[in-house]
Amino acid sequence: MQHCDTLIVPRWTVPGSPVGDVLEDRAVAVSDGRIREVLPRAEAEGKYQPSVLIERQDHALIPGLVNAHTHAAMTLFRGLADDLPLEAWLHEGIWPAERRWVSAEMVRDGTELAVAEMLRGGVTCFSDQYFFPEIVAEAAADLGMRAVVATPVLDVPSQWAGNASEYLQKGADLVHDPYSDHPLVRTAFAPHSTFALSDASFAELRVVADQLDVRVQIHLHETAAEVEISLRDHGRRPFARLEDAGLVNQSLLAVHGVHLDDTEIHRFAEAGVSVTHCPSSNLKLASGIAPVAKFREAGLNVALGTDGAASNNLLDMFTEMRTAALLAKAASADASAVPAVDALHMATLGGARALGVEHGTGSIEEGKWADLTCVDLGQVNSQPVYDVISQLVYATRADQVSDVWVAGRHQLDQGRYTQIDADGLIARGNEWRERIATTGEI
Amino acid sequence: MQHCDTLIVPRWTVPGSPVGDVLEDRAVAVSDGRIREVLPRAEAEGKYQPSVLIERQDHALIPGLVNAHTHAAMTLFRGLADDLPLEAWLHEGIWPAERRWVSAEMVRDGTELAVAEMLRGGVTCFSDQYFFPEIVAEAAADLGMRAVVATPVLDVPSQWAGNASEYLQKGADLVHDPYSDHPLVRTAFAPHSTFALSDASFAELRVVADQLDVRVQIHLHETAAEVEISLRDHGRRPFARLEDAGLVNQSLLAVHGVHLDDTEIHRFAEAGVSVTHCPSSNLKLASGIAPVAKFREAGLNVALGTDGAASNNLLDMFTEMRTAALLAKAASADASAVPAVDALHMATLGGARALGVEHGTGSIEEGKWADLTCVDLGQVNSQPVYDVISQLVYATRADQVSDVWVAGRHQLDQGRYTQIDADGLIARGNEWRERIATTGEI
Repeated sequence: MQHCDTLIVPRWTVPGSPVGDVLEDRAVAVSDGRIREVLPRAEAEGKYQPSVLIERQDHALIPGLVNAHTHAAMTLFRGLADDLPLEAWLHEGIWPAERRWVSAEMVRDGTELAVAEMLRGGVTCFSDQYFFPEIVAEAAADLGMRAVVATPVLDVPSQWAGNASEYLQKGADLVHDPYSDHPLVRTAFAPHSTFALSDASFAELRVVADQLDVRVQIHLHETAAEVEISLRDHGRRPFARLEDAGLVNQSLLAVHGVHLDDTEIHRFAEAGVSVTHCPSSNLKLASGIAPVAKFREAGLNVALGTDGAASNNLLDMFTEMRTAALLAKAASADASAVPAVDALHMATLGGARALGVEHGTGSIEEGKWADLTCVDLGQVNSQPVYDVISQLVYATRADQVSDVWVAGRHQLDQGRYTQIDADGLIARGNEWRERIATTGEI
Repeated sequence: MQHCDTLIVPRWTVPGSPVGDVLEDRAVAVSDGRIREVLPRAEAEGKYQPSVLIERQDHALIPGLVNAHTHAAMTLFRGLADDLPLEAWLHEGIWPAERRWVSAEMVRDGTELAVAEMLRGGVTCFSDQYFFPEIVAEAAADLGMRAVVATPVLDVPSQWAGNASEYLQKGADLVHDPYSDHPLVRTAFAPHSTFALSDASFAELRVVADQLDVRVQIHLHETAAEVEISLRDHGRRPFARLEDAGLVNQSLLAVHGVHLDDTEIHRFAEAGVSVTHCPSSNLKLASGIAPVAKFREAGLNVALGTDGAASNNLLDMFTEMRTAALLAKAASADASAVPAVDALHMATLGGARALGVEHGTGSIEEGKWADLTCVDLGQVNSQPVYDVISQLVYATRADQVSDVWVAGRHQLDQGRYTQIDADGLIARGNEWRERIATTGEI
């Protein structure tokens, strides 16, 4: 008998690769934070002596979900300014709140609340872009959550940096130390959008990103207004400005892509660019519906993201999978568009690829980190089960996640946090709410 | 001190009427199945001696949700035929399954599973249309669920009836006995669609419905194909056929209404017709996006429905509220369209009005039935709370429903069923799945 740290025996195992596979009676052996072996249950019983045996009889074990785009700290602004036209939401709601309230302390508290919500819903890796990224990284590392932390880059000053060069410098510092070889945290650059940076800033960004070999993610073609402003001010669409800056390559992750045209979609596919689809946020801000079926047909890698809690307002990847699959059908007038298996792929391996972490996470494969999510399909709303993947995407809620492991660490055990003090996080969230809601300044 | 059966003391009370009100520190006194009084908490403590005191400190008490359109028994087909083009879904998936499997026993088991799911998610009243409506009515009455049970009417035979006259006759029997004055169950007629009935059948339906003073609900303008077929076969749009049959009046509930034009919307508004919006189902079957913002502007009463579990695949009104509010924003390119308060209204009083049961349910008002749902906003994903109604619609899952009362009967107590044997229902669902999945006949 061989020792392993954890042996997980679910009813179904959905490895994510090969895409669409659903295995029964398998066991997953975990040691030293990594998946050691996926093998028949009967064989595992004779082979492994686990420190911990986890049996889940009505459950599907899936790769930990990857939330490929959020602004975690904005949980503290959740529901602060809903149902406003986009301009009012930004100019009267969110931007004033950010100018008044964003600080290292706020980012820490908001990020921790977000991590708690994401873990509860089966997310094991998130990509963040927000001010004080060093605090986001620290929070993720301390809580044991996998994260790709993108340093924001803007021409305008914030509480965190004064101009594009300073944002880049602070981001570069983060790449070197302490996250050059951290088991959980990776860094990236996040130029906010083409309207937030000059061509000179994009040129500077490109040099730094190339030098450091760091990936770049940007809000791109999110709204029709963004495209119009670019045409007015630069005589080119945002896509063209990025292309001219030499940034359209496989290190690029374009977030949203609602208003990409067919030519741009194919250029992205050729260049190996990934796109993060944020369906709930695009609906809530009335940005439109991204042509996801076209992305998939063109061969683009597609990830899924919740966006921040101010524009969703959940950080719930089950809701995003379901919404992505449903919305694509109506948008393309084809009920077979973006089937459940595609939505699950976007939320797992597609997300990992988009973030450049697919060698370590995104599927249940030997050697990868044990980033695993176990989902209880035994609830009335998921019964009966004809098709496990269909059930996961169309008929499962985030609360049905029973267990979560990140790099082998059992973060959620039968629905209970093992490390996180949710009551404490909620109490801190409420202190922020009282401060924010009682000032007239938001 | 006065006696009352139950005194409920939540943190917030959202009565639903006046629309948008959120009250703090109120208590709701319930006796004999009805709401006796809504009063300040401090006053209630000195006035009422309740048999049961329910205190819920992080919770919002809202009117029980009204699922204004479903086919409950189809839970047994949940996930059986997903991601198919509409024609294949109907002709190769659902219709063959129905021809093969629908029976009194299947309808009983499927309806009970649906009732369990709906109660768990805060639904206290549903409107059903399916074969064997007498079984649906009996299941609802036995389980203590409020229901408006609509008798299907078609020209084609089914296991339940042979032609339109027989469907109508059996429906008429149901109206008289035993549901002429039942505290929980009302009946209605549900001609399936304009493509399923001849003009002669509509004429017969109108006579019977008028005689019995029973309301009529119909799938209407759900798909573009339905409108085209009507033009081809009858030279008129489906709306016009109903108008010619004299059915466009305040007893009519039009389900879906995805492809209603502006003139039809205004005619419906003038006539006092209600529309049931089923956003998830319309997306999943690629039917399109109903112009809900226009419905509201025209003054139409709008209800919300899940549709059946074969086309949703949940019976989750929190998901429908959220989807309705989000989708309307993108569809009308206006982030202020269908605000949270409108979505909540559609799912409560709007639904009750559409079903003709607004005098008994749909809001927390003295004298109405105590159809009440208590929602725990203390979960991480709903924190912090700036705006209770925004949180209920955008940042709450159905599992956060802690307590449900139907006509004062405590059906769900801190997340646990008091009457329903969920394990037994799931076991029966699995017996059906085994039979259905193992035959090649579906």
